[in-house]
Amino acid sequence: MEATKTHIVHGGTLRYLKHDSVTTGTSMTLSVFVPAGEGPFPVLIWLSGLTCSEDNFTTKAGAYRAAAEQGLIIVAPDTSPRGPDLKGRAVADDAAYDLGQGAGFYVDATETPWAPHFRMETYVVEELIALIDAGFPTTKTRSISGHSMGGHGALTLALRHPELFKSVSAFAPIASPTRCAWGEKAFTAYLGEDRSLWDAHDAAKLVEAGAGQNPGGAGAFDDILIDQGDADGFLVDQLKPELLVAAAKAAGQTLTLRMQPGYDHSYFFMASFIADHIGFHAKRLKTS
Amino acid sequence: MEATKTHIVHGGTLRYLKHDSVTTGTSMTLSVFVPAGEGPFPVLIWLSGLTCSEDNFTTKAGAYRAAAEQGLIIVAPDTSPRGPDLKGRAVADDAAYDLGQGAGFYVDATETPWAPHFRMETYVVEELIALIDAGFPTTKTRSISGHSMGGHGALTLALRHPELFKSVSAFAPIASPTRCAWGEKAFTAYLGEDRSLWDAHDAAKLVEAGAGQNPGGAGAFDDILIDQGDADGFLVDQLKPELLVAAAKAAGQTLTLRMQPGYDHSYFFMASFIADHIGFHAKRLKTS
Repeated sequence: MEATKTHIVHGGTLRYLKHDSVTTGTSMTLSVFVPAGEGPFPVLIWLSGLTCSEDNFTTKAGAYRAAAEQGLIIVAPDTSPRGPDLKGRAVADDAAYDLGQGAGFYVDATETPWAPHFRMETYVVEELIALIDAGFPTTKTRSISGHSMGGHGALTLALRHPELFKSVSAFAPIASPTRCAWGEKAFTAYLGEDRSLWDAHDAAKLVEAGAGQNPGGAGAFDDILIDQGDADGFLVDQLKPELLVAAAKAAGQTLTLRMQPGYDHSYFFMASFIADHIGFHAKRLKTS
Repeated sequence: MEATKTHIVHGGTLRYLKHDSVTTGTSMTLSVFVPAGEGPFPVLIWLSGLTCSEDNFTTKAGAYRAAAEQGLIIVAPDTSPRGPDLKGRAVADDAAYDLGQGAGFYVDATETPWAPHFRMETYVVEELIALIDAGFPTTKTRSISGHSMGGHGALTLALRHPELFKSVSAFAPIASPTRCAWGEKAFTAYLGEDRSLWDAHDAAKLVEAGAGQNPGGAGAFDDILIDQGDADGFLVDQLKPELLVAAAKAAGQTLTLRMQPGYDHSYFFMASFIADHIGFHAKRLKTS
């Protein structure tokens, strides 16, 4: 990994990094905040939403004060591969903001033209985690959170790989992508027309099916924290947290949905509550 | 004033606004954060640096958590007029980042082609203050701070108009623009070749001359807080806080310069210490 920029912030060290990814076959960018001190520190992975790179969260969320106080490393990857690839070939893209570059949806694409590079699930749960544990003073324990498309990513990656994460939270997640236009468009493109393959990447359907629960019945995640602004313009048509709440209730999964009055879909919303999420994860990472 | 965007953040209301300015003869933009509650609230005016609009501070400084806690309104104007003007005529600009639009230097230009629109001192100390006091629940008391060119602006406007401000602070200010390339270029363009007219807009020279001090000798400002990163690439050639420290010592003006180890010129530096500055101003605004 090569640091392209380094800043001191809240006493810790923030690096913008890039590396050649064996998973995506492209150069991938990310930011990593490491608190002051020797560590080792637990890790919070942050997944961003549509159109974002690692820079949006890094500059706008105001997350590092709380991360410094709690002693957490925060890792923010980009939201997709971007071109050209490592062999100089063009990486697939789409003119729309909600498909292709900047819109990887945290799945491994199986369809043309996306399959060769758009492998964001494997990138995050295998390559990124290994890279961070190898390159930084981590405890080798981690949690995951994200916003919108990244909230979908955080929830589905945690539910599909509960052994990797101590806790999961989300801001305004796409709670059931199989039942909204953003998700239907992306899953058709990345996973194909067979909808039966989509449910394994839908947070509400995963919860409903008991994903992330221990065999004994108690949830692997003692709670899932969701913040959602009630003035969010995407709430009704795209985000649909009520589907996740209903699934959690049916499955016996504790889930806390906080409807935040007046808040919208912007980083101002996230900045207002990011310290709560960092505290939620720190508590679970430190007692594990 | 017309709100172009409104967000709830940390329980308060953040508005991006624009208005037709009688001072600059252009449309001017700004952001205003008002904490939750009825007020009235004291005001902190924030002046940004070269190339910035009101958006950089608003999205990146992470200032509103502390402002909400302390009950302060924060006002962030743009850094210059921008074209076209209210009569549809072009507003002067320069291809360089350090002159013209985005680089108003908080002076009233006397020279061609800048004089008709570049009147940022009068804009801030007369029109902006009146507009804020008329449009928002303020206590009609205020303080001022800023970064780099905006730190120069905060210091010089406070020293030139001490009756308007309860306190002043700055991040990495251009401490003596008459003695650095940025300032010499801007002052030549805006104020003309006669350097004797420049000193009245140079923080170090103003302090040295006793500006901002009460007739009895005690400073109008009991302290001036300056944060400066020691890894700031502009420190040695452009910012020169040592000239301000020497002037303050000679004049008997209390000034606290905090050299922050490892910090650079970015908003990550400001985000790390903005809560200290908000606390510094809140203490003085609330006891006045």
